[in-house]
Amino acid sequence: MAQEFIAPIERLVEAFRSLPGIGRKTAVRLAFGILDFSQEQAQSFANALLEAKSQIRPCCVCHNICDGDICEICADDDRQKDLLCVVEDSRALMAMEKVREYRGVYHVLGGVLSPMNGIGPDRLQIASLLQRLQTGEIREVVLATNPTVEGETTAMYLTKMIKPLGIKVSRLAYGIPVGGDLEYADAVTLLRAMEGRQEL
Amino acid sequence: MAQEFIAPIERLVEAFRSLPGIGRKTAVRLAFGILDFSQEQAQSFANALLEAKSQIRPCCVCHNICDGDICEICADDDRQKDLLCVVEDSRALMAMEKVREYRGVYHVLGGVLSPMNGIGPDRLQIASLLQRLQTGEIREVVLATNPTVEGETTAMYLTKMIKPLGIKVSRLAYGIPVGGDLEYADAVTLLRAMEGRQEL
Repeated sequence: MAQEFIAPIERLVEAFRSLPGIGRKTAVRLAFGILDFSQEQAQSFANALLEAKSQIRPCCVCHNICDGDICEICADDDRQKDLLCVVEDSRALMAMEKVREYRGVYHVLGGVLSPMNGIGPDRLQIASLLQRLQTGEIREVVLATNPTVEGETTAMYLTKMIKPLGIKVSRLAYGIPVGGDLEYADAVTLLRAMEGRQEL
Repeated sequence: MAQEFIAPIERLVEAFRSLPGIGRKTAVRLAFGILDFSQEQAQSFANALLEAKSQIRPCCVCHNICDGDICEICADDDRQKDLLCVVEDSRALMAMEKVREYRGVYHVLGGVLSPMNGIGPDRLQIASLLQRLQTGEIREVVLATNPTVEGETTAMYLTKMIKPLGIKVSRLAYGIPVGGDLEYADAVTLLRAMEGRQEL
């Protein structure tokens, strides 16, 4: 497609298009939204963007996003350290946290196994998970990957790796709608799923 | 709503929410999209934003957005300088330009009359429009405001102001769908509307 706008706008449109789920028309709308900003608004938008990027790093224990070395959940002494919930990403973790009933800790895989996309166990935080389990502190692992084909495959793979360690492995009950995304599940459904978890 | 995320993410989410048509869920998705960026990508996004904001200013003749003093259309000697098309904003202007049949020049109002929102004639580029018409160079003014209540009101207001100057005033034909937005009209519809324009 030929350049539709003058260069500075075209570059901004392309920047917005690189975000997930943003097509050209939406990118154009957002770019013009920026042009309607005051200079201060535009500057603070750019600052928010760069600060988030520079201040956010993975927790060195669970790989959840945090703005220090260890995330708030891992640092919290009131959390049950013997119950570990494995999630795909920080968004799923935040969805679980909204339930307010789960008091254990987490492990963020950073994705799911997907041979089609060349994502094997070495691309996920699986080695660090098994290392955490070696300490003997953890009594039960709840597998809370998304109820998709890849999520199920990842849960089955992890079950095979963890069961030989003598640790109880469970899976969220199918209260969560099949084929959906944990991020958009409501808190009650997530609570039922956590309560009805099944040993594997 | 209580803070759902750690501060740097929350600030980024709020930054995205300030864009037109972006709700909280979309803002969260976009913020996490930024976190998935490399450092270079995040930096170039921020640069695109600040450069667009600093380099774009209104054309001193027609008030179209441009990256110099005078926009390409006003500077183009091949454009008919006696035919002037009045549009609400630069997006409408760009929609007209896609037709490739219109060879006149433009005037960007910067909005429409809207007493409900406190937007009177002094908030729009109407004084500068009338000043351009004083030169006697312009033979016809085509009013191409959106086919909405405010757009029609603005067109009627401008007709009353321009007709006494002895200049022909026309309005885009109703090929454009009533209640719609010029920005999303297709080129053929816009061409029919331009061809069938009616003297007022």
